[in-house]
Amino acid sequence: MTAKINERQAPNRMAKTMKMQRLMPASEEPNRLDQIYYVAARIFCEKGYDATSMSDIADAVGITKAGIYHYVESKQDLLFAIMNFGMDRLETRVITPARAVADAEQRLRTIVRNHALLIMEGSAVAGYNPVTVLNDEMAGLTPVHRRKVLQRKRDYLDLLRDTLRQLKDEGKLKEVDDTVAAFSLFGMLLWLSRWYHPDGKLSAGQVANEMEKIALGGILRPQVRLARK
Amino acid sequence: MTAKINERQAPNRMAKTMKMQRLMPASEEPNRLDQIYYVAARIFCEKGYDATSMSDIADAVGITKAGIYHYVESKQDLLFAIMNFGMDRLETRVITPARAVADAEQRLRTIVRNHALLIMEGSAVAGYNPVTVLNDEMAGLTPVHRRKVLQRKRDYLDLLRDTLRQLKDEGKLKEVDDTVAAFSLFGMLLWLSRWYHPDGKLSAGQVANEMEKIALGGILRPQVRLARK
Repeated sequence: MTAKINERQAPNRMAKTMKMQRLMPASEEPNRLDQIYYVAARIFCEKGYDATSMSDIADAVGITKAGIYHYVESKQDLLFAIMNFGMDRLETRVITPARAVADAEQRLRTIVRNHALLIMEGSAVAGYNPVTVLNDEMAGLTPVHRRKVLQRKRDYLDLLRDTLRQLKDEGKLKEVDDTVAAFSLFGMLLWLSRWYHPDGKLSAGQVANEMEKIALGGILRPQVRLARK
Repeated sequence: MTAKINERQAPNRMAKTMKMQRLMPASEEPNRLDQIYYVAARIFCEKGYDATSMSDIADAVGITKAGIYHYVESKQDLLFAIMNFGMDRLETRVITPARAVADAEQRLRTIVRNHALLIMEGSAVAGYNPVTVLNDEMAGLTPVHRRKVLQRKRDYLDLLRDTLRQLKDEGKLKEVDDTVAAFSLFGMLLWLSRWYHPDGKLSAGQVANEMEKIALGGILRPQVRLARK
């Protein structure tokens, strides 16, 4: 348990170790950092992580190469920071609100809807969410950083699987394996980061509705869902 | 239509342009090439595409660096060849058998089952299928190669979406958007390449059964599925 709490604190600890020069008012710093993470993630996705230099990122963000080093110490630290940025947003927007829901079915709906909306909100017009896509770039991390990111992913998997087990105990889950069901939901959700176009024919809200229907329909018993209508 | 046929022939044309020295009997060459593709995909996934050298691949395959150039001309050609290798297997094992099925529901089941089994068959003990995962490495391709791979992916999407539309016409599809449903199915299936462990508690056949239940349950009307039991 202590280990998990430490994992969660990691991004904050890390932010403190970054040299954050006052290039702008203190109040605006988090947004500037967020912007760097988002733009860097996009460049990494387009060029590939290893082929991207810190100069490429500085150019894209619109600051000097020296300027970028005021925010991050190295490309490897930047990759880790982007992953934690993504996981922090997941924590704030999906995990924390979901944990606050006692009813398992409503908690599952919260997870699916909020995660889908979070991914679509960060999707570029090019048709992908660079922060979510980059979350797969585990090969670029140091072993220590990789373990930390993996632990955060595992905590989320545990939340989802525990929710499915609770639904099983309540007789609401179909006869499906909870691990396969959990990863199937993740696959559906995370794939959104690779195909959703913000200027496509469906709005983010409509896509979230469709995904909720498909996801819940795939794993909950029909009578339960009919009863809820 | 001509364009599409050309796209499909691309891998064969490419194989011919590769210098294939007779290091082994002609009959064994395809397997040797398959082995190189599979091992190279694994190394690319572990180290990252850009960080991997042809020497790394030669070492992993167990031949000299000069030896590897008898099979492929460059790292970029190798990446394209691996993607086509994956798409060729998809064509043989999933697309062609599915096209032969006239009934839309049975065709959908064929797509889900066969694609799930194909991914799991190629999954390493480390818990991922390197060929499927590498299929995302679009940044490493030349623009021409990228278009060809994209076209092959699009053809598969069209097959799945046409199948869902046929199911909609037959009144078997739930009230779900067919594009969201198609990508949701792809997400579920393709994510298998990142979590399925061949030595886990469920066999590939069991996972395929679960995925079929979840996928079909998510998009087909309950009465249809009940009637089939």
